[in-house]
Amino acid sequence: MSKSIAGPEIERLIQLLARVPGLGPRSARRAALHLIKKKDQLFAPLTAAMAEAVDKVRVCSTCGNVDTSDPCTLCTDPRRDGTTIIVVEDVSDLWALERAGAMNARYHVLGGTLSPLDGIGPDDLNIKRLVGRVAEGGVSELILAVNATVEGQTTAHYITDQVAGMEVKVTRLAHGVPVGGELDYLDEGTLSAALKSRTSF
Amino acid sequence: MSKSIAGPEIERLIQLLARVPGLGPRSARRAALHLIKKKDQLFAPLTAAMAEAVDKVRVCSTCGNVDTSDPCTLCTDPRRDGTTIIVVEDVSDLWALERAGAMNARYHVLGGTLSPLDGIGPDDLNIKRLVGRVAEGGVSELILAVNATVEGQTTAHYITDQVAGMEVKVTRLAHGVPVGGELDYLDEGTLSAALKSRTSF
Ligand SMILES: [Zn+2]
Ligand SMILES: [Zn+2]
Repeated sequence: MSKSIAGPEIERLIQLLARVPGLGPRSARRAALHLIKKKDQLFAPLTAAMAEAVDKVRVCSTCGNVDTSDPCTLCTDPRRDGTTIIVVEDVSDLWALERAGAMNARYHVLGGTLSPLDGIGPDDLNIKRLVGRVAEGGVSELILAVNATVEGQTTAHYITDQVAGMEVKVTRLAHGVPVGGELDYLDEGTLSAALKSRTSF
Repeated sequence: MSKSIAGPEIERLIQLLARVPGLGPRSARRAALHLIKKKDQLFAPLTAAMAEAVDKVRVCSTCGNVDTSDPCTLCTDPRRDGTTIIVVEDVSDLWALERAGAMNARYHVLGGTLSPLDGIGPDDLNIKRLVGRVAEGGVSELILAVNATVEGQTTAHYITDQVAGMEVKVTRLAHGVPVGGELDYLDEGTLSAALKSRTSF
């Protein structure tokens, strides 16, 4: 807003809300007004939830996940298969895989990918701890669920080298046609991979 | 999420974020994760701004606007023309008019429209205070910037009746073609009104 139409506290609230992904300047104003109107039903409880989360959130020292406990909910869940670790670049990938609900394994969050051009080397990622988890034993499979990008694949190769000689199988996600995907929108690499890995019908 | 993948504080944060307009369940997860990652740059400052706003926000006892001071920023702005009051249904309309920046007047927020079917009568709206402001004198024009709906127009008529006999001119927004609007998308009522109120070129 060019001129101030509300006190500095509300202006600042709108400015900060505009930086939340999914909201922009216009949505931020609408969101602020909605929060103000629903003060007791939403604004106050959300503020309290944020204050609690911002205070308690931490990075899991075992797997790199974010949670309000360390070790995190997933690392301490006794129903999970600790012999399999799914390695992801980012917590958002972990959440996406959990929503898919395909595996009941443990995770390891790298916090990015190797990228020499950006000055990101092995020590900038959560790799040493991963190798340590494998070396401690009890892990029979590492599923490298990194992105199918150059950086993701470089990182996958690096990790594979680091655990070479340890008693662990290293696998990666299958390439193929996305469920519901249309063939003529897919790139040639994906189509070739899907053909090569074809399964019997 | 079907199963819990994070501590209850984060699950609750996501649930409440999903109720913010502009965010949905999926965006709420993305927003929560972004906040957690940008803990010092965004999450903590936003939480602090919300805590301050939720604590300080109040309804202006003069005009019905929401702000962190009472009377509000607009009611106390000495550069505004106090002889004109723009009457709006909602604070969001006030904000929209301020963004348009067309008038430097004062406002009055009704908090809704008369709607007998929904059981909303004059006492449920901020009308008595408006009539009081006019009765106190010094107001030469009331611009009824209510929506062009049946309820909006009913409310406009009611207010006009209430200030009848007082020395105040009551006006309303012009009907017409929206700037940038295409004629063949407009309803007949708007087109008729735009023709009737045509101006010389
Ligand atoms: Zn963990
Ligand atoms: Zn006010």
